[in-house]
Amino acid sequence: MVENTVNLNVYWGDTDMAGIIYYPNYFKWFDIGWFHLFKKLGIAPKELMEEQKIAFPIIDVGCTFRKPLYYNDEIRVVTRVAEVNEKTFKLVHEVYRGEELTGKGHELRGWVKFDEGILKAYPIPDEVRRKLTQESVEVK
Amino acid sequence: MVENTVNLNVYWGDTDMAGIIYYPNYFKWFDIGWFHLFKKLGIAPKELMEEQKIAFPIIDVGCTFRKPLYYNDEIRVVTRVAEVNEKTFKLVHEVYRGEELTGKGHELRGWVKFDEGILKAYPIPDEVRRKLTQESVEVK
Amino acid sequence: MVENTVNLNVYWGDTDMAGIIYYPNYFKWFDIGWFHLFKKLGIAPKELMEEQKIAFPIIDVGCTFRKPLYYNDEIRVVTRVAEVNEKTFKLVHEVYRGEELTGKGHELRGWVKFDEGILKAYPIPDEVRRKLTQESVEVK
Amino acid sequence: MVENTVNLNVYWGDTDMAGIIYYPNYFKWFDIGWFHLFKKLGIAPKELMEEQKIAFPIIDVGCTFRKPLYYNDEIRVVTRVAEVNEKTFKLVHEVYRGEELTGKGHELRGWVKFDEGILKAYPIPDEVRRKLTQESVEVK
Repeated sequence: MVENTVNLNVYWGDTDMAGIIYYPNYFKWFDIGWFHLFKKLGIAPKELMEEQKIAFPIIDVGCTFRKPLYYNDEIRVVTRVAEVNEKTFKLVHEVYRGEELTGKGHELRGWVKFDEGILKAYPIPDEVRRKLTQESVEVK
Repeated sequence: MVENTVNLNVYWGDTDMAGIIYYPNYFKWFDIGWFHLFKKLGIAPKELMEEQKIAFPIIDVGCTFRKPLYYNDEIRVVTRVAEVNEKTFKLVHEVYRGEELTGKGHELRGWVKFDEGILKAYPIPDEVRRKLTQESVEVK
Repeated sequence: MVENTVNLNVYWGDTDMAGIIYYPNYFKWFDIGWFHLFKKLGIAPKELMEEQKIAFPIIDVGCTFRKPLYYNDEIRVVTRVAEVNEKTFKLVHEVYRGEELTGKGHELRGWVKFDEGILKAYPIPDEVRRKLTQESVEVK
Repeated sequence: MVENTVNLNVYWGDTDMAGIIYYPNYFKWFDIGWFHLFKKLGIAPKELMEEQKIAFPIIDVGCTFRKPLYYNDEIRVVTRVAEVNEKTFKLVHEVYRGEELTGKGHELRGWVKFDEGILKAYPIPDEVRRKLTQESVEVK
């Protein structure tokens, strides 16, 4: 299905005292990857939240780390739609330094309405489903 | 004016590759200090936000660092109301390791209504003003 | 095996624009849970890093979320040693609001020496293994 | 003196429950601004740390916020060397959304050697001083 690539840097603040990346930063990168993929697909989380109270809370997340990342590393986050279920969708994120895969993770997100403090999952609308399941997307 | 003290630890994820605290974490501690001071004072940011769309965005913030903090350090964050102006208030936060002051900062916050995306400052209500300017507060 | 419980609060800075917890903060809580469990067990990551260049990088991490958390929530993070393998160990973390489990995750960590930029896994020393696999631990 | 501009986005994880940016993220952007300015100047913090144990801890930091930032905003961080003193240097960072200045801050950093746990400030080397005080820099 569709994917998107973002080029990022590992910053000083991303490291810990072992001199390598502090792992929760991977999830910050997943957030960035998701943002740019949805932007490319023409799905606007901000408008969905403001106009329809729709957001995409995480149901399940995971990541496997293969190589440590260091300050100054140039990385590539490749985000792909992996599953589109009735009320949830799954994104897979791969992080590369050059050709080397340093970590791979997923996020399972729901299509959820935030109604007066009550969260309820809804079927993903057809138009969104079409966008998420298309083979590839033309870059604007 | 009133103050509150919170005891905290420096965690692994708070450090950077120089082996000392990554400084933006001080602002996370200020957030924690503010939370507990307001709780002690009986001011409820959550209800103010949900019921009246009132929040306290930062107008000005600063911090001076005197000593580095390390993983495993036990710290004490002392938060004090330093100024109550018409539509703003200033909190001062001091961070100690034992008797040693490691950093001192401030936050100037507004009393702001978030009305349909427009932020507008309002006079701090008298009841809140009274709480913020009292000499000391009985711990519940 | 041994476990430890930490009581925490959900702070303003932990939330996102949907009004619920931004999920990577769970991993910050896991970091806190790990810190206090190791402290209770008498294993000192700081000394291990400084004296022997030993740290515990994450190999695999995951979390399933059952309920959203909100600002002001009081939570309980229960951290347990779930597996002690030859060169790795697994921690399981459960987050509760009152009796309600809001999320459950794991961290698989290696026992790794950081030698001149090269990371190499080593067998977990017997003394540490004993501490990690004991049934329960007396609180100091 | 020299300056550098970085284009960034405001991500979902940068917001808080008031629907605007959570302010400590500004300092994360300052970290990014500093990184890219130093890169442009040919000063390599990673090598300085690894080879000479030199790092640049913050002595004083501050920021004034003029306008809230929202999810999806495209921002521009302009970082400039503002002062080069004997053992310290000051960076000024401005954050813009379009032509609108949303916040402006500074970081005063020391030129510090981390020698066996003791931090000591040293005079900024002449070569670095020359780089920091030049009028402008050719982009590689």
